[in-house]
Amino acid sequence: MSKAVVLLSGGLDSTTTLAYALSKGYKVIPLTIGYGQRHARELRSARAVAEHYRLKKHIVLDLDLSFLRTSALTSWDVTVPQRDSVEGIGEEIPVTYVPARNIIMLSLAAGLCETEGADSIFIGANAIDYSGYPDCRPDFFEAFQKVLAVGTKAGVEGRPIKIETPILKMSKADIVKLGKQLDAPLHLTWSCYNGGDRACGHCDSCLLRLKGFQDAGCQDPVLYEGRP
Amino acid sequence: MSKAVVLLSGGLDSTTTLAYALSKGYKVIPLTIGYGQRHARELRSARAVAEHYRLKKHIVLDLDLSFLRTSALTSWDVTVPQRDSVEGIGEEIPVTYVPARNIIMLSLAAGLCETEGADSIFIGANAIDYSGYPDCRPDFFEAFQKVLAVGTKAGVEGRPIKIETPILKMSKADIVKLGKQLDAPLHLTWSCYNGGDRACGHCDSCLLRLKGFQDAGCQDPVLYEGRP
Repeated sequence: MSKAVVLLSGGLDSTTTLAYALSKGYKVIPLTIGYGQRHARELRSARAVAEHYRLKKHIVLDLDLSFLRTSALTSWDVTVPQRDSVEGIGEEIPVTYVPARNIIMLSLAAGLCETEGADSIFIGANAIDYSGYPDCRPDFFEAFQKVLAVGTKAGVEGRPIKIETPILKMSKADIVKLGKQLDAPLHLTWSCYNGGDRACGHCDSCLLRLKGFQDAGCQDPVLYEGRP
Repeated sequence: MSKAVVLLSGGLDSTTTLAYALSKGYKVIPLTIGYGQRHARELRSARAVAEHYRLKKHIVLDLDLSFLRTSALTSWDVTVPQRDSVEGIGEEIPVTYVPARNIIMLSLAAGLCETEGADSIFIGANAIDYSGYPDCRPDFFEAFQKVLAVGTKAGVEGRPIKIETPILKMSKADIVKLGKQLDAPLHLTWSCYNGGDRACGHCDSCLLRLKGFQDAGCQDPVLYEGRP
């Protein structure tokens, strides 16, 4: 049975990716990295998703990235942009970009893989309905794959850790459909960049998610501010 | 004036690298990552070196890597090997290898570079008198350079962060000579894999360091167990 580390933020994309890895028969170790003050709510979702699947070894790592103070996701001094529609999302790199975030996440996942003897990292990155982050594009994952081949013990011993990006080229609607098809606990997920009891419905992440559910023809089980 | 992030562990190599970056006129931000229980002593050295140079912005990040439990540097359950000479060091990857360590360190340094508008990361890796770690070899740094070019905002905007490895191909003796020539505070550094008031003198790191000072024809200012 192959073992995989799955980066689990607690959002729609990573939860669907986790469900996918399980459906392929992997023994899964979720890795959740709490890196910013805005993300306490997301962390709660990650824990709930791991519990839903009865995954006993869930590594939750507290990483204070507040020194990356230029991002709206790590600093209260930067406001999360609010919009009315998905128009314009992804055209430029937004202030929610956390410098080197996926590089940091994959690095930690790689370390965990080597420690646990896992052969793959699953990451729910998406380069279609996404926010324009450079570290969500195929080029980036190819480059990182090479780093793992030459820069880790597993790599130089001929068993390089593989980065799996099953939803990289899917639309958000297709991610929603895949999640539902796999019976992923989408009701437990949290995608909003803001905390709170209800999702804001106006940050880029909420807008992309809402449009995904709409295009997939289903109801988002998560509650939004000002919506019934 | 160019700005650089320098990975500073507090050892001989990173301190010499810091001195080198300063000598080249960089405005330096040292980044120290305390990642394991064995390293409290090294952290103290890193702080002392940064203070020596009156560097006000010294980022010290606490990163609990105890989940990488297979390494002697992150787990008390794994013993740091002791030897009598440098013979055999580097022939195979030792248990002091921390899975993905330099990948993790460079990732965090890259994030800090983007945040601070720095254009270079200096790392005191060495591929000559070294312990056989895969993430200290030129191949690895080349691959990581590519990740920074395609996976960061700075990279896609045409100002990729540069990884500088000034001592990568130097012998330990030449590193000692360079450190002394630059008047680096070598008396404040700590290279031993074990904590304590005196360096053990028998771990790979101590042995390589001692041989470096010996070959350079100078006295190591650090105190060792059982030596006058």
